Amino acid sequence: MQLNSASKEQLSQWQEELKVKHQQFKNQNLKLDLTRGKPSAQQLTLSDGLDGILKGNYKSADDTDTRNYGGLEGIAEARQLGAAILGLEQDQVLAGGSSSLTMMHQSITFAYQFGLNGTAWKDESDIKFLCPAPGYDRHFSICEDFGIEMIPVAMTETGPDMDQVESLIKADQSIKGIWCVPKYSNPTGIIYSDDTVKRIAKLGLVAAKNFRVFWDNAYAVHDLVDHPKPLANIMAACIAEGTEDSVIQFASTSKITHAGSGIAFLGASKSNLAAFKKHLGISSIGPDKVNQLRHMRLLPDINALTAHMQQHAALLKPRFDTVLKHLEANFSDNDLGEWQSPEGGYFVSFDSLPGLAKEIVRLADEVGVKLTPAGATFPYGKDPQDRNIRLSPSFPSVEDVDATMQVFVNCVKLASVGQKLAITS
Amino acid sequence: MQLNSASKEQLSQWQEELKVKHQQFKNQNLKLDLTRGKPSAQQLTLSDGLDGILKGNYKSADDTDTRNYGGLEGIAEARQLGAAILGLEQDQVLAGGSSSLTMMHQSITFAYQFGLNGTAWKDESDIKFLCPAPGYDRHFSICEDFGIEMIPVAMTETGPDMDQVESLIKADQSIKGIWCVPKYSNPTGIIYSDDTVKRIAKLGLVAAKNFRVFWDNAYAVHDLVDHPKPLANIMAACIAEGTEDSVIQFASTSKITHAGSGIAFLGASKSNLAAFKKHLGISSIGPDKVNQLRHMRLLPDINALTAHMQQHAALLKPRFDTVLKHLEANFSDNDLGEWQSPEGGYFVSFDSLPGLAKEIVRLADEVGVKLTPAGATFPYGKDPQDRNIRLSPSFPSVEDVDATMQVFVNCVKLASVGQKLAITS
Repeated sequence: MQLNSASKEQLSQWQEELKVKHQQFKNQNLKLDLTRGKPSAQQLTLSDGLDGILKGNYKSADDTDTRNYGGLEGIAEARQLGAAILGLEQDQVLAGGSSSLTMMHQSITFAYQFGLNGTAWKDESDIKFLCPAPGYDRHFSICEDFGIEMIPVAMTETGPDMDQVESLIKADQSIKGIWCVPKYSNPTGIIYSDDTVKRIAKLGLVAAKNFRVFWDNAYAVHDLVDHPKPLANIMAACIAEGTEDSVIQFASTSKITHAGSGIAFLGASKSNLAAFKKHLGISSIGPDKVNQLRHMRLLPDINALTAHMQQHAALLKPRFDTVLKHLEANFSDNDLGEWQSPEGGYFVSFDSLPGLAKEIVRLADEVGVKLTPAGATFPYGKDPQDRNIRLSPSFPSVEDVDATMQVFVNCVKLASVGQKLAITS
Repeated sequence: MQLNSASKEQLSQWQEELKVKHQQFKNQNLKLDLTRGKPSAQQLTLSDGLDGILKGNYKSADDTDTRNYGGLEGIAEARQLGAAILGLEQDQVLAGGSSSLTMMHQSITFAYQFGLNGTAWKDESDIKFLCPAPGYDRHFSICEDFGIEMIPVAMTETGPDMDQVESLIKADQSIKGIWCVPKYSNPTGIIYSDDTVKRIAKLGLVAAKNFRVFWDNAYAVHDLVDHPKPLANIMAACIAEGTEDSVIQFASTSKITHAGSGIAFLGASKSNLAAFKKHLGISSIGPDKVNQLRHMRLLPDINALTAHMQQHAALLKPRFDTVLKHLEANFSDNDLGEWQSPEGGYFVSFDSLPGLAKEIVRLADEVGVKLTPAGATFPYGKDPQDRNIRLSPSFPSVEDVDATMQVFVNCVKLASVGQKLAITS
């Protein structure tokens, strides 16, 4: 389907055919959902061994009774696992409750209100964050709630546009943070290049002293391929530059074990950790150590974790393949859509022709297919080109992903042809 | 031992005898600890059935797969249990993570930063809290961290001195909160009288619009007696006055099941809840629903909970009795100490003669007995009369509580006699 070389008659004929097909989908009373990066029930079942795994032994490796209060940093073996995931030492990692989003929110709350190893953001005016976009809507929501001004930065195949990032930060000391999902970025699925990691580690040399990189390594071990491209170690890069305090790292087991019931990790320099812990200890006596212990019995080390993730990959890969199959079959020979083929993570990021994302989502909704709202992947929910749609194929069955993608490609074509006809006439 | 009618010689002789005994304790190389309100291992074991209780059935009553993301308010049956504990309706309660302290901290963060159904505290100057004292040190720490000025209020046998509370609040709209532990108050163990509850419900009529009562009902079901004195329902009292928005309630299962791994509850009016949830949803996708489900399988309703708490009481009562036995045997016929005999909760609050609490704690530490630091129960850690010591007998064995109390009463006497002698000479 080459829109640019097609006659008006050809476009009208296509439009008719696509409309007929759209109506056929409508008649099927579909109820499909590709909105959220949720694991499927099959994936969750991989970790059902968690319940009952303790067999009456509630003692952690250092003989702590995990059932009682205390232990703000989490149990040692959980911190060790977090360290392995994040490429850190055990004493650079806190193992917390079930949500890394909560730890990010706490970090921002503490940095804003009290100062996290530096001046409190509230004591400065017009605080700003750099937001590589498309990105993760929940990151942006935190900024919006705090009234932190978000500056969008373009995403490239190697990570955020670092020329843009560096020049913005150099020019403006009121920029206090940048959101990064460095591996299988949400939603584009790319891995930050070694050069990007190095340049991010250098930001601490020019940024404000209370600037922090929020390094959300949510998909650190969520590979779909056997020999995944490694992500460079940000802490090692920071140490080389003397900027260890400029980065705070996050990860969790949420898409490893049970999605809402895992362990979250925060990794940082010792001075950042000390500052975080000071305020964390005001708000909590300690995390759920029993649940941490359950996780460690299920996944005692990084090798057990890797084997576990391969089982996830076996379930996820066919779903991703189905998405990509439809995109390739329909858009590889034309300019109606652009996407990347991720080697891990939870998303396929699709860019339509400019100005069509909202219309495509509306059309899909019309026939019972829920897609992530257009714009959700941009700060303030505003995609300036209205073209990005995040596809999340993990939760539905392969058959449902297939059915959804048939609808999706038809909606993309229908919207594209409609736009072309509107311009042409 | 009547210090006031004793001669100097008598005092000196007592001092000698007490010092000898103190030295004997020292020679025993004791290692005893009465500092924290932690359940004992025996108590924790009462809930060991939690692990493995799901038997592969991870569905909540409404067929939600608790293993996946979502459900910000917690599962319905957990909210129902929280409602039963707090005397509320299910839709007035959120079931959260493992820490009610975290929910209190969140409430204050949201009220301070964003406004919780009212003007944000940060937009007003010189924010203050009323702090009935002696009280819970972790409440005071939150205020201190936020730079909220704490105004101590006297505790009586019926709750905070309400004359003082009312006149302070009427005179000063910058008072934004009051901390209350209404049942088995930490540490005095008293239950707020019906009149106190009614007067607290009326505070919303005269206080600032963004004033909130932080009603930490931590010991709501933690009775030591068979027919506990009931606490009046604060929400019912507020409804009668039209002040439903003036109170936020908290509770948790931390001293019901495993101490760090339970469910926390927040209860409030619908408009307060909506405001809380708006910001909670920015910081979390939802609580650990699997753990909530485990709890509901173990404690399906309030009757199961009551039976469970009776098992706790059977373990706790001998420990409290031991503390009281020593206090009564040594101080009932003199003025060296004052205390109340709590019918529930986790503490016995002891008041020495003025100016001696620090010295008593120091003396006990000298012979290997750790007590809660003197002053900890007051704002800024400063007991103006230096006389309150919080005794927490739940964690040690009955034998250890007995040994500790032998040391304690000797330290109280030694400090008292020493003070008297210093005045006399």
